[in-house]
Amino acid sequence: MKSFRTLLLLLILFAPSLLVAECLTRGTGDMGIIIERAAGSLKVVDTSARRELFRVEGLGDLSHASAVYSRDARYAYIFGRDGGLTKVDILCGRIVKRIVQGGNSIGGAISQDGSLIAVSNYEPGGVKVFSSDDLSLVADIPATTVTDREGNKKGSKTVGLVDAPDQRFVVSLYDSGESWIIDMDTPANPSIQRFEKIGRLPYDALITPDGRYYIAGLFGQDGLSLLDLWHPEQGPRLILEDYGRGQQKLPVYKMPHLEGWAMAGGRAFLPAVGQHSVLVVDSTEWRELKQIPVHGQPVFVMARPDGRQIWVNFAFPHNDTIQVIDTETLDIVKTLKPGKGTLHMEFSPRGEEVWISVRDKDEVQIYDTRTLQQTHRLSVDKPSGIFFTSRAHQTGL
Amino acid sequence: MKSFRTLLLLLILFAPSLLVAECLTRGTGDMGIIIERAAGSLKVVDTSARRELFRVEGLGDLSHASAVYSRDARYAYIFGRDGGLTKVDILCGRIVKRIVQGGNSIGGAISQDGSLIAVSNYEPGGVKVFSSDDLSLVADIPATTVTDREGNKKGSKTVGLVDAPDQRFVVSLYDSGESWIIDMDTPANPSIQRFEKIGRLPYDALITPDGRYYIAGLFGQDGLSLLDLWHPEQGPRLILEDYGRGQQKLPVYKMPHLEGWAMAGGRAFLPAVGQHSVLVVDSTEWRELKQIPVHGQPVFVMARPDGRQIWVNFAFPHNDTIQVIDTETLDIVKTLKPGKGTLHMEFSPRGEEVWISVRDKDEVQIYDTRTLQQTHRLSVDKPSGIFFTSRAHQTGL
Repeated sequence: MKSFRTLLLLLILFAPSLLVAECLTRGTGDMGIIIERAAGSLKVVDTSARRELFRVEGLGDLSHASAVYSRDARYAYIFGRDGGLTKVDILCGRIVKRIVQGGNSIGGAISQDGSLIAVSNYEPGGVKVFSSDDLSLVADIPATTVTDREGNKKGSKTVGLVDAPDQRFVVSLYDSGESWIIDMDTPANPSIQRFEKIGRLPYDALITPDGRYYIAGLFGQDGLSLLDLWHPEQGPRLILEDYGRGQQKLPVYKMPHLEGWAMAGGRAFLPAVGQHSVLVVDSTEWRELKQIPVHGQPVFVMARPDGRQIWVNFAFPHNDTIQVIDTETLDIVKTLKPGKGTLHMEFSPRGEEVWISVRDKDEVQIYDTRTLQQTHRLSVDKPSGIFFTSRAHQTGL
Repeated sequence: MKSFRTLLLLLILFAPSLLVAECLTRGTGDMGIIIERAAGSLKVVDTSARRELFRVEGLGDLSHASAVYSRDARYAYIFGRDGGLTKVDILCGRIVKRIVQGGNSIGGAISQDGSLIAVSNYEPGGVKVFSSDDLSLVADIPATTVTDREGNKKGSKTVGLVDAPDQRFVVSLYDSGESWIIDMDTPANPSIQRFEKIGRLPYDALITPDGRYYIAGLFGQDGLSLLDLWHPEQGPRLILEDYGRGQQKLPVYKMPHLEGWAMAGGRAFLPAVGQHSVLVVDSTEWRELKQIPVHGQPVFVMARPDGRQIWVNFAFPHNDTIQVIDTETLDIVKTLKPGKGTLHMEFSPRGEEVWISVRDKDEVQIYDTRTLQQTHRLSVDKPSGIFFTSRAHQTGL
């Protein structure tokens, strides 16, 4: 009986470690998630071993999902199309908490210090801010009220929400044509700086990797709106006003994602809306340097982390293709055919590999960015967004 | 007896989890190490809770130590002055393996894919490359033989070792005035491209954050050597040839660290050797724009991650001070007095805080970079280098 008691004592002592036995003790620096858009699930992956660690289900409608990471790179926050906000523990492969915070969310951001999660909503409009710890509501910021075609009043859709240095968020209002800087220094009482008439129908935005420039794409007119966050007192200004003007416009199959704009060597590379070209822009003067003709309407235009290459995917019906542009010669150096539904790509943090979602093949393909050859593949159910944990350390991602 | 057996079975089943019970199951994205230079130990820290997690002893002579991280951000590799290379598991707070690989090492790097650790040595010179897994020797690259003042032949000291994209390392040879590009695509058979006569006595080097330019500081002449890794066929060229010329030189109390050079907004900020100034250099043309007079001889000149501020510490006898420079106005906006032996600093990945080692106070001070006020302190025995895990994802760090 004495050894029985000893054993019992041991079990009680180590009960906590038994309870977490299914969780992994490992570094999170080489992990990531892949959204399975149709199943409403995600896969947690190890980017060193290039294998799946967990599958997490029950995340709702992920048809247009995005994600950010906690500053410890353990938790992913997934923003779903259905207004769902889900906190996933990637070391244990399980949902920590899930709330449906709005009717139709289209993206979110995490504050510089990692304490706050902001979500932008189409329905009912506005921005909600939550504690990253327990997803409790910290601030509810209503959008400007607009009147729709039927004469009904509603909150403007909010789009292009990003985090910025100094504990700020920046967001644009689609219907009312505004950009807002939201200072969360006092979380319960956000201080908002509103800029009106930034341009017609901002539909998405990006912040440059250094967190200085906030640039909103405009659906209702030519050009883009630029806000210098080092000098908000100067207000937003219109740039690239002649972009697209005088050209025959093609139907827009899919709005490009501005978060994917690439900065490399003093130049920005961005998708030309509705055109088969990538714009090359001087990122000091913000003027157009060149248009590079490409295979289709670009969706994501992303720089390899060292800025040597730009990788581009395309909207339907050209979404089976990736093109690689050399940032020095501006030539297309490779055209790849991963397959139909090539939806998203993510570079390893130091750029030696890129992971590409190929929806219709139910696989993620991995390419060596030096040889431009496919080296591995992973089975994933209708993959879309791929998000690696290195995003935890980057402004605007 | 039946319950006894059940308990025994349970214990056996969960034995592995009991064995790792002292290790932490947590994200590694907000962790770091602080070198305790006198004690030959280090502290593992949590940068979110701002507290110590482990103290690891037995790392040898750490009087000039540096560190890199594995790609999963679980393991730190510490390069000691005594030629020691130590692999530390920061989740378990223990040494995994320690070897003394050379007589006097001065730094190291981890390959782009994370598989290789390279170490540069003063004694016997040359570069050794190890497996990051078990620290087994993969390649031993001897330095160019030189003849010293006494007529003895020896290998040149190797300095300024960095990792570069495409699985390369770059290093300089102090005595023979060379820079080498070491391509590790075939690890057992490195391919070496040698550039001779780069300038007299290169003493340290940096690689720009995008991995394109390798710049070596020269102790034996004015100017610096620049190698464009996108165009190695052009060879290195001398830049800033007039830097320092015609000025009264002060005795150099401590060679500045070139790894700390800061890039922000198309400009590089770098310590002027032996002078009380920070050089501002156009990083496209690589010509000097301005010299900013500062409090002493700068040692580390580091950009806040968003490039808005440059923080500078100084050599003895001015090593009780930090100055903060606004990168737009180039004015000194703040002079801080952390205390004597202000040796190193490290920014949180997204820049909201900076941690500063103050050796003679046995503490690390934490500052809010927005208010420039000290907010926290941590007791550390004679702290020097601070290295956060976000370095795992950055080229050249």
